[in-house]
Amino acid sequence: MKIKNIKLVVFDAYGTCFDVHSTSSLLKKYIGKNWKNFSNLWRTKQLEYSWIRTIMNQYVDFWKITNDALDYTLEVYKKNKIKKKLLNSYKFLKPYSDLELLINFLKKKKIPRYILTNGSSLMIKNLLKNYKMNKDFNKILSVDSIKIYKPSPKVYKIVTNNFKCSPKNILFLSSNCWDIAGAKNFGFRTAWINRKKIKFDKLGFYPDIELQSLNNLRKILT
Amino acid sequence: MKIKNIKLVVFDAYGTCFDVHSTSSLLKKYIGKNWKNFSNLWRTKQLEYSWIRTIMNQYVDFWKITNDALDYTLEVYKKNKIKKKLLNSYKFLKPYSDLELLINFLKKKKIPRYILTNGSSLMIKNLLKNYKMNKDFNKILSVDSIKIYKPSPKVYKIVTNNFKCSPKNILFLSSNCWDIAGAKNFGFRTAWINRKKIKFDKLGFYPDIELQSLNNLRKILT
Repeated sequence: MKIKNIKLVVFDAYGTCFDVHSTSSLLKKYIGKNWKNFSNLWRTKQLEYSWIRTIMNQYVDFWKITNDALDYTLEVYKKNKIKKKLLNSYKFLKPYSDLELLINFLKKKKIPRYILTNGSSLMIKNLLKNYKMNKDFNKILSVDSIKIYKPSPKVYKIVTNNFKCSPKNILFLSSNCWDIAGAKNFGFRTAWINRKKIKFDKLGFYPDIELQSLNNLRKILT
Repeated sequence: MKIKNIKLVVFDAYGTCFDVHSTSSLLKKYIGKNWKNFSNLWRTKQLEYSWIRTIMNQYVDFWKITNDALDYTLEVYKKNKIKKKLLNSYKFLKPYSDLELLINFLKKKKIPRYILTNGSSLMIKNLLKNYKMNKDFNKILSVDSIKIYKPSPKVYKIVTNNFKCSPKNILFLSSNCWDIAGAKNFGFRTAWINRKKIKFDKLGFYPDIELQSLNNLRKILT
């Protein structure tokens, strides 16, 4: 399969470009053998809170959501004293190793690259700065400008408000099922980066293509 | 603490009146020792799908949501052949043992009782019929009439559209944190039935009172 006529590639940030479980060494040190369950609960609550608050019309930014989800997780694990270190680690999430090659490929092909993220622009800009990736993306678009979280169609519309073309000519990349479903619902072409070989959620919308890593995209993007 | 001036008591259905994990004997038989994890994943996906679809403006009713969440869970556990039996079990979820005494108490005090549920009216009416509880509630109100799931403020407004009084004179009962947060956000007084002694979610809204079971409510409702 080949993907043709793509004028813009849009990346989700957390889970797609940056590994939300990448602070494992810190977690192993402070949480111990249950560090994976801890990390999963933190992530689960972060997403739940973004959805529930959107439905309640009670938006707060993703830093506050991340903070609240961490507070909950620390309470469950009775580890309240290490909060500052763990929250700070979210500023240094590692980019996936397959990201750089794809960025260079898209640069060569002169296909612009956007990020569309639940995170605040500041969170993402700082992450990119920490890894000297400031010039990898042409624009950072954040839900913070409209105060509604993914997968609302209003979020994906931020992209076409900033880049005038049909959604069909935009390729959206995400590792998150609910994000792919939302992007497909809006009309983007979608590639699901299924790094962990999980099952796709039953939300009525499915990716155009499923890949195990960003590496596989170079071969089919023509 | 006493709760005064209550003119209507509104019950959440799933998790509050009916135990969503009550099909344990069936699950033990077909899933084996992991039945609790299976049941939790089914419930987690059911809730996630209700929230994600609400945000995507892609409502389907709760029977379809329950079906989709079960499909996902069965795929993960590679147990696709037992679907019909498990889905059917959702029609026979058991009422909690503490429900009947509270209903009788409220009947005596002539306080009307409503159900406000994510489920379709048919799902709840059939459940009540199966347990001969048809006369326990004065009205069954379902999100299906507006096609948006809890915890949207529009859902809680169905109650005051049907029973004219200030939200402050309505007591809302739920075991689900996100439901209590949504009800409180709307303006109801709220009692969180924390049967499993879990931590309350960090959503910016908290219950007026926390109880371990519905039994404790009789003492404080004056």
